[in-house]
Amino acid sequence: MVKPSKEFEKKLELYIKLIEEKLQSIAAVPNSPDAMVCEAMKYSLLAGGKRIRPVITIACAELFGGNIDDAVTVGCALECIHTYSLIHDDLPCMDNDDLRRGKPTCHKVFPENIALLAGDALLNKAFEIMSDKDNFISLNERTMIELVRTLSQASGTKGMIGGQVIDLINEKRDDVDIQELILMHKKKTGALIEAAASLGCIIGGVIENEEFNKISQFSSNLGLAFQIKDDILDVTGNEDILGKPIGSDKESGKNTFVTLLGLEKAEYILKRHTEVSISALEYFGDKAWFLKELAVSLLIREK
Amino acid sequence: MVKPSKEFEKKLELYIKLIEEKLQSIAAVPNSPDAMVCEAMKYSLLAGGKRIRPVITIACAELFGGNIDDAVTVGCALECIHTYSLIHDDLPCMDNDDLRRGKPTCHKVFPENIALLAGDALLNKAFEIMSDKDNFISLNERTMIELVRTLSQASGTKGMIGGQVIDLINEKRDDVDIQELILMHKKKTGALIEAAASLGCIIGGVIENEEFNKISQFSSNLGLAFQIKDDILDVTGNEDILGKPIGSDKESGKNTFVTLLGLEKAEYILKRHTEVSISALEYFGDKAWFLKELAVSLLIREK
Repeated sequence: MVKPSKEFEKKLELYIKLIEEKLQSIAAVPNSPDAMVCEAMKYSLLAGGKRIRPVITIACAELFGGNIDDAVTVGCALECIHTYSLIHDDLPCMDNDDLRRGKPTCHKVFPENIALLAGDALLNKAFEIMSDKDNFISLNERTMIELVRTLSQASGTKGMIGGQVIDLINEKRDDVDIQELILMHKKKTGALIEAAASLGCIIGGVIENEEFNKISQFSSNLGLAFQIKDDILDVTGNEDILGKPIGSDKESGKNTFVTLLGLEKAEYILKRHTEVSISALEYFGDKAWFLKELAVSLLIREK
Repeated sequence: MVKPSKEFEKKLELYIKLIEEKLQSIAAVPNSPDAMVCEAMKYSLLAGGKRIRPVITIACAELFGGNIDDAVTVGCALECIHTYSLIHDDLPCMDNDDLRRGKPTCHKVFPENIALLAGDALLNKAFEIMSDKDNFISLNERTMIELVRTLSQASGTKGMIGGQVIDLINEKRDDVDIQELILMHKKKTGALIEAAASLGCIIGGVIENEEFNKISQFSSNLGLAFQIKDDILDVTGNEDILGKPIGSDKESGKNTFVTLLGLEKAEYILKRHTEVSISALEYFGDKAWFLKELAVSLLIREK
């Protein structure tokens, strides 16, 4: 695996510029009595992050000739769901975190009840965006419904929320094994990353065929690799991406790939999952160059 | 206004039977590691209630010849959203209520974090239901997207969540006037009741025409009447529908139609809004008999 190219960095930068512009417009605060909740939504939506999910949506759409603007819109709807899950995960009754990515969490800047409602509103917003034909250039209602179906199933109890629940239950157990940890992360983190890729496919007109399956193989392995890397960075990194003290997961007794497998084995399976994700892309040859380099860049990232 | 007929009671009973059956199937708990959150969703979804929103959806769909089974499904998706809003409204950081309709609130029966996620999951579930073509007999993707758009806009910051935020802000003020109270309730309670009617219209193929406007006039006035009646029952009723001590809103300093207007004037505007809602239905003649009697039954209800 070679280091990502200048061409990759340039394209990634362009994608992120498009995403941040769209998120800015989604986060616009109206002049109305409920402005405070919109301020809280904006605070969390624009608090940074790698935007990995919308990047995947756009790249998959582009691979299949889908409209890029529509992919940016759908990717940002997905980012609304990711952001809501972070706001609710940080609440006192959940992880009770004061910092995220080095900044105060939503409920530390706004009243806790406003943070709760901002999370609700961002989840809801994703579906407001996805169901309004005025937001799209090339998509018809049939495609839009397929997108809503894919996203809602990924974010519900069969996907992300299911993973959050298993995580809460596992935290109270001291006998969680690696298969259970994988199952939890396949849902909690993996479901939205897989959905990001599926949404891009659907925008490109690719649904339930061999191409779709190859992309699913790519994204499911990438999702797991992404989480393993997070766990490794929590132990080895210079800066924890969540803004928590380094190694705090280990101290808190939280199960991670590193605590269950040790650093060496965790690094081995990280590399293995990255390789499998890239090999799934061989089906597309050079056309999938950006996604291949993306997988490598996530493998070697330092935060 | 005459008392609702036996025919009305019979049809209402049938509608509610269909709704409860559908909610039972939506609330089915899978045999999977995340079962606990599904138990919490089921607990709140099947905790009773008048089911007024799905009843309105079905009745409006029937008025325009829409498929009843599809209307039951859509009405129950809407009920999922209503139920999530109650779970989150009851949480310690919101109203901190121990009882709802005389039963322990979700976070009193389940851990608070599970109640939070159950609320999230019910909001999400509404869109899972609405975007899966297998759930519908007569609806095409174009209609489905219109339904998702209508529901998501009603439940977001421009609708219900916006109303919840204004309610939180108003609670801290001692100078709220009647116009502000009306605006808050038009969003917090009214938006979903209006949406219930709009969804029924859309299922019946009625979108943005004179018939649609008449139904909107009916439902917006009914929504406000519904809230005024709740406020009156809180003062005069034998049993508070929320299971809270009677008159507790007054004691808590919460603004209601009764505290701002007095009982007599509140009863006057309740009757007035009910009359206006019924008069909007005259456009349809006898065909709208059920909706007319529904408005009367809500006016004279005792809980």
